[in-house]
Amino acid sequence: MSVLSNEQKLQIQQSREASASTRRIVSSGLEEILYEAMPVLDHGFVRVIDYMGDDAAVVQAARVSYGRGTRQVSEDRGLINYLLRHWHTTPFEMAEIKLHVKMPIFVARQWIRHRMANVNEYSARYSILDREFYIPAPEQLAAQSVQNRQGRGNVVGPVEAERILELLKEDSQRSYDHYLDMLNHDETGKPIDENRQGLARELARMNLSLNFYTQWYWKTDLHNLMNFLRLRADTHAQYEIRVYADVILDVLKRWVPLTYEAFREHRLDAATFSGEGVKALRRMLSGEKVEHSDTAMSKREWDEFMSILAKR
Amino acid sequence: MSVLSNEQKLQIQQSREASASTRRIVSSGLEEILYEAMPVLDHGFVRVIDYMGDDAAVVQAARVSYGRGTRQVSEDRGLINYLLRHWHTTPFEMAEIKLHVKMPIFVARQWIRHRMANVNEYSARYSILDREFYIPAPEQLAAQSVQNRQGRGNVVGPVEAERILELLKEDSQRSYDHYLDMLNHDETGKPIDENRQGLARELARMNLSLNFYTQWYWKTDLHNLMNFLRLRADTHAQYEIRVYADVILDVLKRWVPLTYEAFREHRLDAATFSGEGVKALRRMLSGEKVEHSDTAMSKREWDEFMSILAKR
Amino acid sequence: MSVLSNEQKLQIQQSREASASTRRIVSSGLEEILYEAMPVLDHGFVRVIDYMGDDAAVVQAARVSYGRGTRQVSEDRGLINYLLRHWHTTPFEMAEIKLHVKMPIFVARQWIRHRMANVNEYSARYSILDREFYIPAPEQLAAQSVQNRQGRGNVVGPVEAERILELLKEDSQRSYDHYLDMLNHDETGKPIDENRQGLARELARMNLSLNFYTQWYWKTDLHNLMNFLRLRADTHAQYEIRVYADVILDVLKRWVPLTYEAFREHRLDAATFSGEGVKALRRMLSGEKVEHSDTAMSKREWDEFMSILAKR
Amino acid sequence: MSVLSNEQKLQIQQSREASASTRRIVSSGLEEILYEAMPVLDHGFVRVIDYMGDDAAVVQAARVSYGRGTRQVSEDRGLINYLLRHWHTTPFEMAEIKLHVKMPIFVARQWIRHRMANVNEYSARYSILDREFYIPAPEQLAAQSVQNRQGRGNVVGPVEAERILELLKEDSQRSYDHYLDMLNHDETGKPIDENRQGLARELARMNLSLNFYTQWYWKTDLHNLMNFLRLRADTHAQYEIRVYADVILDVLKRWVPLTYEAFREHRLDAATFSGEGVKALRRMLSGEKVEHSDTAMSKREWDEFMSILAKR
Repeated sequence: MSVLSNEQKLQIQQSREASASTRRIVSSGLEEILYEAMPVLDHGFVRVIDYMGDDAAVVQAARVSYGRGTRQVSEDRGLINYLLRHWHTTPFEMAEIKLHVKMPIFVARQWIRHRMANVNEYSARYSILDREFYIPAPEQLAAQSVQNRQGRGNVVGPVEAERILELLKEDSQRSYDHYLDMLNHDETGKPIDENRQGLARELARMNLSLNFYTQWYWKTDLHNLMNFLRLRADTHAQYEIRVYADVILDVLKRWVPLTYEAFREHRLDAATFSGEGVKALRRMLSGEKVEHSDTAMSKREWDEFMSILAKR
Repeated sequence: MSVLSNEQKLQIQQSREASASTRRIVSSGLEEILYEAMPVLDHGFVRVIDYMGDDAAVVQAARVSYGRGTRQVSEDRGLINYLLRHWHTTPFEMAEIKLHVKMPIFVARQWIRHRMANVNEYSARYSILDREFYIPAPEQLAAQSVQNRQGRGNVVGPVEAERILELLKEDSQRSYDHYLDMLNHDETGKPIDENRQGLARELARMNLSLNFYTQWYWKTDLHNLMNFLRLRADTHAQYEIRVYADVILDVLKRWVPLTYEAFREHRLDAATFSGEGVKALRRMLSGEKVEHSDTAMSKREWDEFMSILAKR
Repeated sequence: MSVLSNEQKLQIQQSREASASTRRIVSSGLEEILYEAMPVLDHGFVRVIDYMGDDAAVVQAARVSYGRGTRQVSEDRGLINYLLRHWHTTPFEMAEIKLHVKMPIFVARQWIRHRMANVNEYSARYSILDREFYIPAPEQLAAQSVQNRQGRGNVVGPVEAERILELLKEDSQRSYDHYLDMLNHDETGKPIDENRQGLARELARMNLSLNFYTQWYWKTDLHNLMNFLRLRADTHAQYEIRVYADVILDVLKRWVPLTYEAFREHRLDAATFSGEGVKALRRMLSGEKVEHSDTAMSKREWDEFMSILAKR
Repeated sequence: MSVLSNEQKLQIQQSREASASTRRIVSSGLEEILYEAMPVLDHGFVRVIDYMGDDAAVVQAARVSYGRGTRQVSEDRGLINYLLRHWHTTPFEMAEIKLHVKMPIFVARQWIRHRMANVNEYSARYSILDREFYIPAPEQLAAQSVQNRQGRGNVVGPVEAERILELLKEDSQRSYDHYLDMLNHDETGKPIDENRQGLARELARMNLSLNFYTQWYWKTDLHNLMNFLRLRADTHAQYEIRVYADVILDVLKRWVPLTYEAFREHRLDAATFSGEGVKALRRMLSGEKVEHSDTAMSKREWDEFMSILAKR
């Protein structure tokens, strides 16, 4: 299953081969992978198209510097940790990244809710979409969660899985066939019937289902990228967007290794305890045995609290 | 074709019957229609849920006033016209409106691009969508425009229209049938088969097509509402979002009649001429006969220029 | 020391006396104090000018409801707690508040950094500012902190305090005298010298110092208001902005009591521990004695960590 | 009068001398001037610190391209003109620029109102400001405008100018002397008196006047940069911010020559006529003689209308 056409591969290769001299901050970690398509799901990808700055840009801005702004790595690391821990967010807004992303429409619909970003999407009013739709791997076909109204539970059995995949595939193929039919447009781009006019693209697209792929250029700053990752690389996020967040986490690591480290430590691996949680903690540390009924937490909050303390 | 269930009608009626006293600015024009569903397309609507301020809030803020801030209507009108004409946008940000909107997903996807708004969408991860999808009226089934890659041309013939509507309806019905099937959920909300688990809602939804209806609460300020209307009540906007904009234009007129008037005059009915356009105008006014070849405008810009001057 | 002129008091009183009927959600807690000036610092205030929604608007939006959306108070409280704890921020964006604030310019300069708000400031290009400047109370005259490069330490001695206050007062008075002089404008608004033209207001204002008072209309949604309060009602915030945040915290309590409660519990009284912090906690809870040297925390982070656990 | 210290000059020189290879789009026009301080007013400057993309990034995003996205210059120019003319703003959000700006505080206060930007300002809570304040050139000392409540009229006479400049200089010097005094900090950075503590920096700064210089890192995208320039390079903008906008206009020309051209043509040199204005135009073009009294325009709007048509 190939994500890219030969022409697309050639365009990417040509972009990668071009090179020029710059006085700007250069991230060697990102230069290595620039323009390359990192595959996600069955037809999707993430490509880094451009970036501005790296860890150095964060400390340079924090110091409102006339020069490079960086000092010893240990000093820069300390500053970045301090800024992140104390929610000094503006220096992280001083680095920027631009991605080309291809993803199913229902993923794009979640993604777009992060408003602090610039987006230019491929227009299905203007162009014809490809026959590309997302079909989950069987191990991703989970039942509705019983505990969580908004999540997945156990994987469905193999018979049910097969039936579901069959329905998804057939409906997707048919809706695309009919999309082309309405457009009066065959697979090679020619009219099916010279005497028909073909429906306007902006109308025909409504027959496509939400698993069809769309693509866009997406640009955001490092602060807002971390907000996105904090929510979308989380276990509560839907699997199909989480896999994109995971790929972008790797991009983050290459781009801004010090910020990535601080982000892991102070956001991803961090835990927030409510006022009641902190009180319970203090009592526990003083040797008291604390039960749920000794606190004012809801059952759900108590369970979350205890699971954080138990994890290893 | 009924847009609302009886229960929904009752809830709306109850909301409309409640009433309380307030010291705030009250817009009598909006109070009249508050909570009512104004139908759009075949299953959609716009409902005004809440608002803050009206024309008076604009002038009050412009004057950073300790009191109501309003004076004579003629003075307020003059101020509002001046503010709008000179792009003093911040006073218009001081009035706010909240709408409940139901619209096809492909319309929602255009709408959400207006980032300066607050949105809370009905979640298909959490809930099950209704069997409601948009089927265009036959007179809306237009062919792809020949001049404009992003628009509609002539209406397609009746035979083709019938065929297209048939495809749209069948595919929509089938995709919804299969959606329920995957969920293991019959039309009354019961499991189809007690032994099947049913696919997670966040997955099953991907089988629905872009003409299915979604709904959200959408809140924005008067300045950004006018930006939305300027772009979406425009003839270049897709018909299916324009009809929503047209309904909201009427809401605007009820809510802020002075601002509405100024908006019509200085935005909707206004025309912008480029530097070259202004030069051509001056030559024409001095009696010169100006042709396209006498200017540096592109053919397309020239045609747009001439059509503005010719309109009546 | 009176904050308001008699004319301003009259305007406020007239606004408070007007009353009308509305179908909208009404917050009785806010109606009581609507338009009233709550004094802050020596010449400043906060006034609530308008609002949209209250706790009910949050749950109504979260449920994308056709009616009021509220249920039992206990159910609404549970939902609001859940939303806040899990960073579901969009329902909180559905309530809005508008304040009239008067504050020293250096406070306004910190405040404006919260970009997700609408602001209309009194223009010193257009109008003449009053002779109103902030002089700290002697007990607020603190020395530079030794630990914290960005904060206050001990209160300065009475002799030094007197000297400082003298300098501040004299310089403020003189800069205002010269401001009027440049404008050729006496205290009653008449020209000082009929033969002089008077400097443009947009220029003369530059002679005023940063403790002069400015004022604006400021409007934001409940989510962003809580962001503002989390940062500005914090002990790390400068005292002169914190007193405004404290007054607004009281407004929050009146306006949205359930959200206020959840905000206290899950933001103000909550504590976030880093990955290393959580690991240390687990070891401590299992009975181990943990020292700073047993962890990878910086000394500063360790001190913050221990002080949270010690507080009572 | 030197804007930069020798150490600052050295830091800039070192930044300029460093160079590395990149696969990204490189703007040769910006590389030439990267990091250099372009002087503005008596102590201010604009420095380009970093950028992402150029004209090519606009067309690349508009085409959601896999490669460079650019074609013939004439095709790219046509596309950029089309996008700008029709308010397709998202492709212009795909290029980004970061500036280091030093400006008087009253200029910073206008500048910050452009919210769609990232800002990190030099902190006077944390650091001590330099003895640098803006004193207008005598030819900039204009009287209050008679027509326009928010603007300048004629230059004041030489005697009055001298008096005003004297006041400004003396007050600025004195307020800085007292600032240092309160801080217990002499010009070389040593304590004035070992027995005094020195006031906290966050308090002492309030004695400085609005003509003192501050500085920040400011980052925005090309679309929002053009919004800034449209308002601030305009004749209605205050001179002291307009000179910054003028320098940035030159930066724009170097960076994105095609966009600059289109921006001049369709924004700076363009004119917008209201509905009434367009009607009057049509009558004039058909040979009719139109007076103000024949239209529904206000006197002020009519004057603006006629002055556009008269300009050459």
